[in-house]
Amino acid sequence: MKKLINDPNNVLNDMIDGIVAAYPEYVKKLEGFNVIVRNEKKKNKVALVSGGGSGHEPAHAGYVGYGMLDGAVCGEVFTSPTPDQVYEAIKATDDGEGVLLVIKNYTGDVMNFEMAKEMAEMDGIKVEEVIVNDDVAVENSIYTAGRRGIAGTVFVHKIAGAKAEMSGSLEEVKAVAEKVISNVRTMGMSLSSCIIPAVGKANFEIGHDEVEIGMGIHGEPGTHREKISSADSVAEQLMSKIFSDIELKGGDEVSVMINGLGSTTNMELFIVNKKVNEILKDKGIEVYKTFVGEFMTSLEMAGCSISILKLDDELKELLEDSADTPAFKSL
Amino acid sequence: MKKLINDPNNVLNDMIDGIVAAYPEYVKKLEGFNVIVRNEKKKNKVALVSGGGSGHEPAHAGYVGYGMLDGAVCGEVFTSPTPDQVYEAIKATDDGEGVLLVIKNYTGDVMNFEMAKEMAEMDGIKVEEVIVNDDVAVENSIYTAGRRGIAGTVFVHKIAGAKAEMSGSLEEVKAVAEKVISNVRTMGMSLSSCIIPAVGKANFEIGHDEVEIGMGIHGEPGTHREKISSADSVAEQLMSKIFSDIELKGGDEVSVMINGLGSTTNMELFIVNKKVNEILKDKGIEVYKTFVGEFMTSLEMAGCSISILKLDDELKELLEDSADTPAFKSL
Repeated sequence: MKKLINDPNNVLNDMIDGIVAAYPEYVKKLEGFNVIVRNEKKKNKVALVSGGGSGHEPAHAGYVGYGMLDGAVCGEVFTSPTPDQVYEAIKATDDGEGVLLVIKNYTGDVMNFEMAKEMAEMDGIKVEEVIVNDDVAVENSIYTAGRRGIAGTVFVHKIAGAKAEMSGSLEEVKAVAEKVISNVRTMGMSLSSCIIPAVGKANFEIGHDEVEIGMGIHGEPGTHREKISSADSVAEQLMSKIFSDIELKGGDEVSVMINGLGSTTNMELFIVNKKVNEILKDKGIEVYKTFVGEFMTSLEMAGCSISILKLDDELKELLEDSADTPAFKSL
Repeated sequence: MKKLINDPNNVLNDMIDGIVAAYPEYVKKLEGFNVIVRNEKKKNKVALVSGGGSGHEPAHAGYVGYGMLDGAVCGEVFTSPTPDQVYEAIKATDDGEGVLLVIKNYTGDVMNFEMAKEMAEMDGIKVEEVIVNDDVAVENSIYTAGRRGIAGTVFVHKIAGAKAEMSGSLEEVKAVAEKVISNVRTMGMSLSSCIIPAVGKANFEIGHDEVEIGMGIHGEPGTHREKISSADSVAEQLMSKIFSDIELKGGDEVSVMINGLGSTTNMELFIVNKKVNEILKDKGIEVYKTFVGEFMTSLEMAGCSISILKLDDELKELLEDSADTPAFKSL
C-alpha cells in the first residue's frame, strides 16, 4: 500500500488534526470526539449536522461553515460514527432552535444517527432528520435498505444550510431539505477499487478493460460491469438511468454536479460534463449552475458520479445564496 | 488505458468545451483558439494571462475570473501552447492598461510566451512577464533551464490578480508578482506516474514500495528515489529542502499550500498538513492561511507538493482580498 499516511490505524485522528490545522478560521474539533464544528457557535439559527464514515472527503467536514453545516461527525474509514459522537455534535451545535440531521441512507448511519437523536431528545433538544437516498443505481445494497445516499447530499447541505442562515425554522429547514432529496438523482460508475488504509489492499478488482456502472461509494455492486467505452457513452448511460427515475422536460431548470471519486482527473470530469450538458440541451432542459470537482469521494477510487437537481425558484435562490466553508464557497 | 475520454487526440477540445459548458457565468472560449477568457472583458485594469500545457487542471483555466486571471492559454497535454495562441489571449484581454504574462519556467513556455509578447508589442500593446520558478528540488531539468515553476504559481495568480483588481499599474502588478516569486518555495514528491491520453501508457514506473522525492509535474526526475516511509517523514524531508532555500525564522508569517497531484486523497493531504503545521509551529513560524486540495495537478499522478509563501503586510492583504473563479474563491 502506497499512501501518505503514518499508522494506518490512526488515519482518522491524523486527518482531523490536519483539517483543524488547515482551517482554524472555520472549524475546531470537539475535544475528545471525532466531531468538527464551526469555530464559533452560531446563535439564533437551526443547526445542521451531517457525517458518516470517513474516506469521502471533502464530505462532510469540508462543508462546515457559513451557509452549510454546523457540525460533521467523522466515523472511521467507511464506518458509521457511533451514536455518542453524533449526540455530542447535536449538543455542541444546538442553540435552542433545534438540529437537523442530514443522514446518507446506510443502515449503520441511520441507526446511529437516530439513536443519537433519541438521546438528545431526552435532553429536551429538538431534533429532526432527513435521509438522503439519491443514488438511482440499485434498490437495496450491501449496507443499505432502499437506495444509497451519495453526492446529492452536498446539495442538501448547501440548500438547507442557506435556509437555516435565513432564519428558517426547524420545520422549514427540514421541508426544504426534503424537497432537495425528492428533486435530486445521482448515478455513478467506477474504473477502479480503492484501498482502505487499515486493510492495506484493494478488496476487489475491476478488469483492466472494465468499468462498473452504478457502483456505490464503498465499492458496493452496481448494475453491471462492461468493457470500457467512451466518456460520451458513459455519460449517456448514467443520464439515461437518471431520466428514467425523475421527470424532466423542456423548460425545466437543473443544477448539475460532476463528482470525481478520487483518482479521476479534472480533465475527464470536464469531458463528461461536455456530454451531460449536450444531453440536457438536446432535451431543452436549462442548466442553471454546474459543479465539477471532488465533492464526495471514495478514497482514491477512479470514476465519477453525475447528480441532477431539478430546481424551482426557492431552490435556485437558496442554491445561489452565499456559502463560505473550506470546500465549498459561493459568493 | 482506462480513462473517461473519447478520442485521445481530442481531449483538449473536449475539455475546453466542458469547462465552458460548466462555467458560462465565469468564462468563454476565444473562438478558434484554445484560450479561456473572462466572459466579460474587464475595463480599466491590467490583464493577467497565464497558461501552459494542459493536464494540470484546475491550472490555469480554473483561475480565470474576478481577482485572478483574465485569460488562460491551454496547450496540448504537457505541451507548451504556441505563440499565436498566447498572442490571441493578450489581444483579447488587453484594455489599454497592459498585460502581465505569468509563465511557469519551462523552456517551451518561456520561448512561446516571449514570442507572443514581441508580437503584441509590435501591435503597441504593453506586455510584461514574470517567470515562476518555485520548485526547489533541482536546478535545470528535462524541459527547464533553472528551476521549474509549479504550484506556487497559484499564489502569483491570486496576489497579482488582486493587485490588478485594485487598479495597480502594470509595473505595480509585475512588482508584486515578482515579490511572490521571490517569497515562495515548493517541493514535491510522487508515488506513481501518470498516463498522457495520446500516449496511452505510463512513460515510467515507480516501484511498488518506492517514492520519488522532488519529481516534477511532468514526471521529470527529482533528487532521488527511496523506500516509502511515513507521511511525517515525507513532510519533514520536503520542508527541510524548503528551509534550506529560504530564510524563515520565528515570528515570520507564511501561507501554506498542500497540493495533491491527482490521485492522492484529501485524507492524505490533511495528514501531511498536520505535520507541516507542527514543523512550522515548532519554529515559531505563524501560519496565516492554509490551502489543501488540488491546485496544480499532474493528471492522475499520486503525490503532493508543499508550497510555503513568506508573507508581509502587502502580500497578506492581497492574499486575503476576494476572488471569484471556478476553482478558487475567497470571500
